[in-house]
Amino acid sequence: MSAIDLPGFADLERARLRIAAHARVTPVLRSRSLDALAGAELHFKCENFQRAGAFKFRGACNAVWALDEATARRGVVTHSSGNHGAALALAGHTRGIPVHVVVPDGAVRSKLAAIEAFGASVHRCAATLAAREDAAARVCAQTGASLVHPYADARVIAGQGTAAIELLEAIADLDALVAPIGGGGLIGGTAIAAAQLSPGTQVFAAEPAGAADAAESLRLGARVADFEPHTICDGLRALIGAPNFELLRRHGVEVLTVDDDATVAAMRLVWERLKIVIEPSSATVFAAVLRHRERFAGQRVGLIVSGGNVDLDALPWTPPPSAPGRG
Amino acid sequence: MSAIDLPGFADLERARLRIAAHARVTPVLRSRSLDALAGAELHFKCENFQRAGAFKFRGACNAVWALDEATARRGVVTHSSGNHGAALALAGHTRGIPVHVVVPDGAVRSKLAAIEAFGASVHRCAATLAAREDAAARVCAQTGASLVHPYADARVIAGQGTAAIELLEAIADLDALVAPIGGGGLIGGTAIAAAQLSPGTQVFAAEPAGAADAAESLRLGARVADFEPHTICDGLRALIGAPNFELLRRHGVEVLTVDDDATVAAMRLVWERLKIVIEPSSATVFAAVLRHRERFAGQRVGLIVSGGNVDLDALPWTPPPSAPGRG
Repeated sequence: MSAIDLPGFADLERARLRIAAHARVTPVLRSRSLDALAGAELHFKCENFQRAGAFKFRGACNAVWALDEATARRGVVTHSSGNHGAALALAGHTRGIPVHVVVPDGAVRSKLAAIEAFGASVHRCAATLAAREDAAARVCAQTGASLVHPYADARVIAGQGTAAIELLEAIADLDALVAPIGGGGLIGGTAIAAAQLSPGTQVFAAEPAGAADAAESLRLGARVADFEPHTICDGLRALIGAPNFELLRRHGVEVLTVDDDATVAAMRLVWERLKIVIEPSSATVFAAVLRHRERFAGQRVGLIVSGGNVDLDALPWTPPPSAPGRG
Repeated sequence: MSAIDLPGFADLERARLRIAAHARVTPVLRSRSLDALAGAELHFKCENFQRAGAFKFRGACNAVWALDEATARRGVVTHSSGNHGAALALAGHTRGIPVHVVVPDGAVRSKLAAIEAFGASVHRCAATLAAREDAAARVCAQTGASLVHPYADARVIAGQGTAAIELLEAIADLDALVAPIGGGGLIGGTAIAAAQLSPGTQVFAAEPAGAADAAESLRLGARVADFEPHTICDGLRALIGAPNFELLRRHGVEVLTVDDDATVAAMRLVWERLKIVIEPSSATVFAAVLRHRERFAGQRVGLIVSGGNVDLDALPWTPPPSAPGRG
């Protein structure tokens, strides 16, 4: 697609109908104690409960079910180290078509396992953008499969925007809406939904300080293309895509950057108070609200919690010695 | 109370009305992949989302609001190393009355912090049942506060039973219903609810093998009184209470014991697949279903997930070095 192939609200509405039989309408959770901490009224849209554990299933599902039958039968391909790969694998499974995922070295183990569990063919490559794109192009040429780009794709952006539609319909009069930004599929769709359904809602993107190419691109007025990310947010290391950048500019989305330490602290608070498992990338939104408390004071704020695919192998699952005494 | 002061279904109905303004109706979650693992249709009633993070708030809230005004003003007292203490602290807060919690040494730090955060007065004591009961009696004598026992109390049992009412109303025709057993407040209320609302549903109690006094008591036909628990399930170390034991017998509840290793593995699966934070005591129910797979094969099973108060300090919250490559 070219940089000017932008989806509109009608595409989001079509996406919503297309994925309705497959995707979940996820819950919106609240916490008195987190509201008190933030000094604001927070509504958490829990895409960690989405199928395959992340909002990514919405866009992948829309892309897969938008294909005509002959094209679909040749399969789909993407390159992804994580949630988009698993999402496309599951989306292809719902339609019974072949899925190929090019996975760069260094991917989170649990995400790779999910891609394989949903039955996709995995193709390993080096951990550079060039290697990923080359490998995906090779698979396309060999199999006739269609590329479903993780974020620079109008069908994917439209699908991701359906999460914001659900949130804006569930919670009236949001003053602000915050979503994470990596490649920009989620924030692009979110901005489209808010502009149509709630023009008074200000849209913010939360970006890791160590992968702040979107913030830098907005500052410079042009997309930064050479940028080495350093963040634990494995879902947010991508450079912002061309259509995604254009959507940010058109809708006046403001980027708030957050350090990894703040993101981890925010993640821990969400685990502890909301009792849900979310991944680091998802915690950037709450970290941004806490970091910029004055911006959100007293406001009604929607936060899109993007996913819950954490590598639980990193946690100490061996039972500790039991403490003495009775419960 | 005496061993024969047993609540009936009408008490559960009254409890439900009494706590409606304060307690949450918690969601019931499902997972395709956990169903496949168990070979059964599983419905998880998520009391980890209850206020104060556990089902305990239901019983504490019922007990607090059942008091007449003059009695309530003198306050309430209990002994608890954990969830019941925090639940009573919060319940007392909803009525604006003093709460005293006797906490034995060795309590989980996060639970102690919750008790204090809800504004209760904390009284430390040694980690024996005798020390706890002595300290609670002393506080009663000094303050005129009423004792709200963690489980051997008809008001508490009736309150805990409201979780099962909600689950049985939400999911029709359960073949089986499984709840954890410690002192027996939750399982007692659950058995009463099932007997009235769904007599065809078989009720099971999941008990840690290292604290299997309820299983042993049923086997012997009399309550075991000297038993030293050894389990990581800090919420299930109590000896079964007298009214609770009587309810188990009357309703033909079967106890299934599970090792801590199986409980931890089940807890990990729930975190990973349902994306919710649950504590070890809660995971015994899913562990029991997996351990006794043949008993539940093809059945529709309700599981009461009792709470989500884990000591997150035990997890490695320092960000790991970020992996190379982009998301």
